[in-house]
Amino acid sequence: MSDAMRRFPVPDEADLPEDLRERIAEETERAGFTPNVFRAFGYKPSHFRAFFAFHDALVDDSPLAREEVEMITVAVSGANDCLYCVVAHGALCRIYAEAPKLADQLATNHRTADVSEEHRAMLDFAVTLTESPERVDDAAVQRLRDAGFTDEEVWDIAAVTAFFNLSNRMAAVADMRPNDEFYAMGRGE
Amino acid sequence: MSDAMRRFPVPDEADLPEDLRERIAEETERAGFTPNVFRAFGYKPSHFRAFFAFHDALVDDSPLAREEVEMITVAVSGANDCLYCVVAHGALCRIYAEAPKLADQLATNHRTADVSEEHRAMLDFAVTLTESPERVDDAAVQRLRDAGFTDEEVWDIAAVTAFFNLSNRMAAVADMRPNDEFYAMGRGE
Amino acid sequence: MSDAMRRFPVPDEADLPEDLRERIAEETERAGFTPNVFRAFGYKPSHFRAFFAFHDALVDDSPLAREEVEMITVAVSGANDCLYCVVAHGALCRIYAEAPKLADQLATNHRTADVSEEHRAMLDFAVTLTESPERVDDAAVQRLRDAGFTDEEVWDIAAVTAFFNLSNRMAAVADMRPNDEFYAMGRGE
Amino acid sequence: MSDAMRRFPVPDEADLPEDLRERIAEETERAGFTPNVFRAFGYKPSHFRAFFAFHDALVDDSPLAREEVEMITVAVSGANDCLYCVVAHGALCRIYAEAPKLADQLATNHRTADVSEEHRAMLDFAVTLTESPERVDDAAVQRLRDAGFTDEEVWDIAAVTAFFNLSNRMAAVADMRPNDEFYAMGRGE
Amino acid sequence: MSDAMRRFPVPDEADLPEDLRERIAEETERAGFTPNVFRAFGYKPSHFRAFFAFHDALVDDSPLAREEVEMITVAVSGANDCLYCVVAHGALCRIYAEAPKLADQLATNHRTADVSEEHRAMLDFAVTLTESPERVDDAAVQRLRDAGFTDEEVWDIAAVTAFFNLSNRMAAVADMRPNDEFYAMGRGE
Amino acid sequence: MSDAMRRFPVPDEADLPEDLRERIAEETERAGFTPNVFRAFGYKPSHFRAFFAFHDALVDDSPLAREEVEMITVAVSGANDCLYCVVAHGALCRIYAEAPKLADQLATNHRTADVSEEHRAMLDFAVTLTESPERVDDAAVQRLRDAGFTDEEVWDIAAVTAFFNLSNRMAAVADMRPNDEFYAMGRGE
Repeated sequence: MSDAMRRFPVPDEADLPEDLRERIAEETERAGFTPNVFRAFGYKPSHFRAFFAFHDALVDDSPLAREEVEMITVAVSGANDCLYCVVAHGALCRIYAEAPKLADQLATNHRTADVSEEHRAMLDFAVTLTESPERVDDAAVQRLRDAGFTDEEVWDIAAVTAFFNLSNRMAAVADMRPNDEFYAMGRGE
Repeated sequence: MSDAMRRFPVPDEADLPEDLRERIAEETERAGFTPNVFRAFGYKPSHFRAFFAFHDALVDDSPLAREEVEMITVAVSGANDCLYCVVAHGALCRIYAEAPKLADQLATNHRTADVSEEHRAMLDFAVTLTESPERVDDAAVQRLRDAGFTDEEVWDIAAVTAFFNLSNRMAAVADMRPNDEFYAMGRGE
Repeated sequence: MSDAMRRFPVPDEADLPEDLRERIAEETERAGFTPNVFRAFGYKPSHFRAFFAFHDALVDDSPLAREEVEMITVAVSGANDCLYCVVAHGALCRIYAEAPKLADQLATNHRTADVSEEHRAMLDFAVTLTESPERVDDAAVQRLRDAGFTDEEVWDIAAVTAFFNLSNRMAAVADMRPNDEFYAMGRGE
Repeated sequence: MSDAMRRFPVPDEADLPEDLRERIAEETERAGFTPNVFRAFGYKPSHFRAFFAFHDALVDDSPLAREEVEMITVAVSGANDCLYCVVAHGALCRIYAEAPKLADQLATNHRTADVSEEHRAMLDFAVTLTESPERVDDAAVQRLRDAGFTDEEVWDIAAVTAFFNLSNRMAAVADMRPNDEFYAMGRGE
Repeated sequence: MSDAMRRFPVPDEADLPEDLRERIAEETERAGFTPNVFRAFGYKPSHFRAFFAFHDALVDDSPLAREEVEMITVAVSGANDCLYCVVAHGALCRIYAEAPKLADQLATNHRTADVSEEHRAMLDFAVTLTESPERVDDAAVQRLRDAGFTDEEVWDIAAVTAFFNLSNRMAAVADMRPNDEFYAMGRGE
Repeated sequence: MSDAMRRFPVPDEADLPEDLRERIAEETERAGFTPNVFRAFGYKPSHFRAFFAFHDALVDDSPLAREEVEMITVAVSGANDCLYCVVAHGALCRIYAEAPKLADQLATNHRTADVSEEHRAMLDFAVTLTESPERVDDAAVQRLRDAGFTDEEVWDIAAVTAFFNLSNRMAAVADMRPNDEFYAMGRGE
């Protein structure tokens, strides 16, 4: 319980503002447990609100399928070596894509994952934008368009990648710990 | 006018939702011109709202001085080679710190900038978190605490760094262009 | 069955030399299935023999505990982004260490894994030797000795690291695919 | 004599098992001196046997010419900055290729070496596999096949590269020292 | 005045040899102030003479336009994170190119600068030669020729790049400080 | 003869200006052959003069021993993978240091070379300044002073390093070829 993160104190849920407690209750009901990122961001309520509002915008208002969002997230988090996001979003990736092996493949090396050509282009772009943002130029964007992605899809692939470059860094500094449940979720057929 | 960004269409301000137009009007009044990042994010209103709400939380609810926020922003954006953020936040850095040479120093190489020992530690941490998030460990965080930063300041240094790792990547993909005004602002004594 | 590797033909087991068939039979009985690395190396029997003889020497004649060998293997394979070795040795790591979360932690970032100080030193050395062999100098070796490792243990940490730098590269070129069974093995309590 | 390696004790030859003494005697007769890698691996006889058995398989059962094996070895060892292997295999490369300048060229920068187009492709592949094994994909392997290499030759180019990624790391940790003789061998016309 | 550089003593101008004093007087008259690089190199007169003679050869005997020389200089110095050269040659770049925004664009990321296709090729070459000289091969040189550069222009692009790789390193070790005047020069329309 | 460099035409010696012919004659008499760098720089006489004048200043006016200059040169050129400078200055290093193995050790990996503690510090500094000039800070310079180097020696270590960062890049672009004689010079006892 106290292991949500290791470098900052985790506040008692009872001491959190009403809106945070409501959001946490919803997530806990949905998942069956409280994902530790919610407990960790309770440390600073203004950042809790901003962080999850941004995440909500990314998944609620996008032409990308949810499984595509999670595939990008796992590949980016693997490139950044982020334990919390690889494990927690690895679980979501397995579940949304209904593919028990996909997350381990993406986290280890998206180039050897079982994905379509279109998704390979999407993930190449996301990993390049993660590792070498200064190298993204017209040619890199054109490759995404050649793979069939619309303008808004290109924007959203960038936005999901950018958001997890934020998220991975907060998890790294706070040493956020994935809940035990995430490690095994979605691994069955 | 049409040069806010080069890889996505920039919507007419008149077509934007009411809340975006209000925010843009406020920023335009404050700056004397509309910073292009507001015009660019108009492309996707849900992301506009999330992005600026996060930014507001970072600057409105922090024990860090605004000039410290801008110093981190310029050093991070320099490490990521992000034109929009180096130029636009360079202007803000010069103005908030009342230091006409500081932004060019930080964008080029924070190690040769005229800053205090404490700020050197802060910037070393921000640049390491930008370039090698996987290497941030207990020792790296301890160096910040040894330099006198409180827990909440450490969190906020991380959060500003993380946010501009998001922001730099959106600017890179969209090829956002700094307004001409930013290049020269705050350079006088 | 035909998915042991994707860039070279996989020979029929029946066509393999007697000694290879015997070794494969033993491994199949032990694991309950034939790990694909045995099927893949069947492509070149002389290399099959050399590869597994070296591996046998590493695990059969070492003061290191088997779980230590597997911890090094997973951390090295994670640093090299090697899908086959991360997944197959991840399973062995979970089983030998009786630690269902350990392999995901080591493959993602050994710096955030739940390991002792001694094992952190061992893994730091293995990852540095993997990423920057030219930087291993007296000081790096001394840190291992300071952590309590004997001469022979230092040699063996190096040898396991070196061997999986070989193994990861063969798996990368051949595009060896982990058996489905490995992904989920050892994840229960 | 006592300078075969600097970080582990070198056993007296007389104390080594019979099979090691026989192998060392053969090598000493062939070369006119005992190459230090044999003295160094005497530290751990089980690893001595495994290491040289693997090496024998690579050179005795391959469609690659011996000079090609040595060219790959020198380029890989140069990329890994490995003194022992650059100097000892540099001598072998000069001798087998009957090319007194080739080893210095390959160790310094294979891109400026006097080699055929086919060998440039072979060496590009070996150096990429050494430096970035995670980037080897279908396109990289296809370039080798386009240069005319058969399946088995591709496998063997990979295997030689992989083996010297092992060997370079053992030499680095042990600080193996090339025999004086190797520095000048094969330099005459 | 005493802030020309921070890691070596700056000699009094009166104590310098006659030829150095004359050169400094000329530069001071031309610029309206003494650029600090002249004061810094006064530390070692033989190096002062060699350094500025080389610089004179580069700008006085070249088919490249002076603005091209300064564009290369700023891009190279940005890649090397060199404060003195980014700020001092940034001023010259703005003035010679009559382009108040160009230097900030080139120092931050030449890929997002407002330059022609030909100049993009020139700057790509200069930055690659700066960051990875070992990768310059026939294909890299051919791209310059395909962009329309003559043999002598290719040589001179290389020479300017090479010279500022020298210059940036001297400025880094000496911690040379740009004169205040350079930061703002050439920024008006 | 025509192999001094491969990417630019080499002028006939007879067509060179008088002062270049005199310098070449002197060098040819000293070495017994014309080192190819002199033939290559004949392509552009103004650069020939500037380049060798700078080199003369470095070796003629320095408290560093000539063997120290050559040790730095070989280590820097090895770090930059520069064939011409590794081979030509490798010969000079062997001769001036009267150490037949030293150049191969320095070119491969200065960390495993047989050098004093003081020279290890000198070479660490030169290689860091070559690979990461932006990281040279007060602490890096202090380590040189702690090793006993005077102010002027620190300046000259930097200047030699900086000059060969220029030289290596010219040799890379021109594809300068070491004379055959250099490969074997100075290798005898």
